[in-house]
Amino acid sequence: MTMKKFINQPERFIDEMLYGLYAAHPSYYTCVNEDAHCLITKHKIAGKVGIATGGGSGHLPLFLGYVGKGMLDGCSVGDVFQSPSSEQMLDVTKAIDSGAGVLYIFGNYNGDIFNFQMAAEMAEMEEDIEVRLSIAGEDVASGPRAKEQEKNIRRGVAGIFFVYKCAGAAAAEMLPLDEVYRIAEKTKLLVATMGVALSPCTVPRIGHPSFTIADDEMEIGMGIHGEAGIRRGKICSADDIVKEIVPPVMQDLQLRRDDEVCVLINGLGATPLEEQYLITGLVHRLLKDAGIRVHRTYVGEYATSLEMTGLSISLLKVDEELKRLMDAAADTPMFTQFGESK
Amino acid sequence: MTMKKFINQPERFIDEMLYGLYAAHPSYYTCVNEDAHCLITKHKIAGKVGIATGGGSGHLPLFLGYVGKGMLDGCSVGDVFQSPSSEQMLDVTKAIDSGAGVLYIFGNYNGDIFNFQMAAEMAEMEEDIEVRLSIAGEDVASGPRAKEQEKNIRRGVAGIFFVYKCAGAAAAEMLPLDEVYRIAEKTKLLVATMGVALSPCTVPRIGHPSFTIADDEMEIGMGIHGEAGIRRGKICSADDIVKEIVPPVMQDLQLRRDDEVCVLINGLGATPLEEQYLITGLVHRLLKDAGIRVHRTYVGEYATSLEMTGLSISLLKVDEELKRLMDAAADTPMFTQFGESK
Repeated sequence: MTMKKFINQPERFIDEMLYGLYAAHPSYYTCVNEDAHCLITKHKIAGKVGIATGGGSGHLPLFLGYVGKGMLDGCSVGDVFQSPSSEQMLDVTKAIDSGAGVLYIFGNYNGDIFNFQMAAEMAEMEEDIEVRLSIAGEDVASGPRAKEQEKNIRRGVAGIFFVYKCAGAAAAEMLPLDEVYRIAEKTKLLVATMGVALSPCTVPRIGHPSFTIADDEMEIGMGIHGEAGIRRGKICSADDIVKEIVPPVMQDLQLRRDDEVCVLINGLGATPLEEQYLITGLVHRLLKDAGIRVHRTYVGEYATSLEMTGLSISLLKVDEELKRLMDAAADTPMFTQFGESK
Repeated sequence: MTMKKFINQPERFIDEMLYGLYAAHPSYYTCVNEDAHCLITKHKIAGKVGIATGGGSGHLPLFLGYVGKGMLDGCSVGDVFQSPSSEQMLDVTKAIDSGAGVLYIFGNYNGDIFNFQMAAEMAEMEEDIEVRLSIAGEDVASGPRAKEQEKNIRRGVAGIFFVYKCAGAAAAEMLPLDEVYRIAEKTKLLVATMGVALSPCTVPRIGHPSFTIADDEMEIGMGIHGEAGIRRGKICSADDIVKEIVPPVMQDLQLRRDDEVCVLINGLGATPLEEQYLITGLVHRLLKDAGIRVHRTYVGEYATSLEMTGLSISLLKVDEELKRLMDAAADTPMFTQFGESK
């Protein structure tokens, strides 16, 4: 069977991708111990809290793309949709620590949780590095909001971008680990997301689509690895999709008139930017009608699922502190923002 | 028939897209005479040469996305793959002129050429605005390099990004129109591109794919509106694709050992960023083997064709002047670069 992909052998897909990533961005990225799966910034800042993330490959710009100035310091990745090992996470941790401790920000997936927790224990016991863990999971479609964070069953999706941005800006302000951790935890609870998928993706090693969906169907609430959503049905108009998926996000955040939000319209891989902007306009109208103000809007691919067609809509409820952090400059290979304009 | 797209009525596709674009980037964009198809920067600089572009919609980030600081000042767009009118181009011209004259940079398509030439004549005769035209067309697959620029039959594709970047930086340096024009003309002749497509796109008003291609086929050299390429065949490995399309680009630029280039790996819409980076690595290896040095590498979607699967590879041969201009800062909604790191 032929896959319509730009690849050589499926087994070399991620290694070859990583080779290109380092080749393209030599002033930003280097690796640890010659393991390309362990990527760190070249701009280490003495005394700054280090921030690491990681997870399976196949979601670019997530996770690697956000390592750089004003965001993350290191990242370990596994093969497509596979967690990196705890040893790889530990190697990144040691490389980015500069004495102020390290914060892990990652998605709510069992493999990642297990490996990051293991890495944190090793870092603290063997290396005397103080580590905090912030586990982001904000997909409204994947379960109810948890009262206790340990019981959060929600999947992490594109909203983790906001956690990276705010915590990364806090670390760049040279705030201590307690404060950077507080901001990550605060941000993640103020994000909510819902998505919709129109077509599956194909993991190269597997060689066939991760699920089937009819030519006239969509699935509301699907996860970025193809996890089942909450409703499959005939594809409807963009208006109706926005009316179905945005109100639950607003309700989840208990948004009220005059609240302020940042908006993230995220393409899952194969959705044209034109359609993402069309959706952006509809979301803005809906928010305006509810009296919600928009502080900043991000449109594009922020967390993908290879060539899946679909998108997700995330809202971050912001106060003055989060607006300051969202407005700060960031300079990474896949997300760049000057410090002022909106 | 159902199209798998996030749209309402096809007739409203571009208007609704534009509404979202202005809503998302209120500090960057405004329009002229309440016509959303005529977009200009909010950061007009007195005495600076104005740069305008335009063309059909459906290629985001091209064209609108590059209006902003350090690149373009204005842009008019038509419906999907349709040229804007000469009146719209004239309106943009009048809005961005600040006395230093206006440069048009656009792709080598008959409708655009006709309308931009008409707009230039009207601007000069009716408004006394000095206008120069720089027509970029660099797709090696679409024809031989022309000795006289007027006879250039090559299609313009993603390489126009380099022309925008260099001319935009020159204008930001407050160089006069003659110089900005010289740099645009110089840059466009030092760019060459070749692409490959794996799947078609569907124009919403038409409602069916622009061409058919078998599940195991690719087409080398296809244009960004689905124009016929130079070879259709079974899809081959990424290695073989790179070996087929990069050497003609290198030969076209007469690259020699120790020459320097900027590389642009451009996704056509539905190609995962992972695959684009994989290709990036292979291109870097091939250039390295030939003794060609890489000054900067750009990877991502720069000129698309809605949801077409495929990519293009562009090289810009650079000297010290073009390196300075490529390295300059730019801040637009869809392309942002701090002024230093590579």
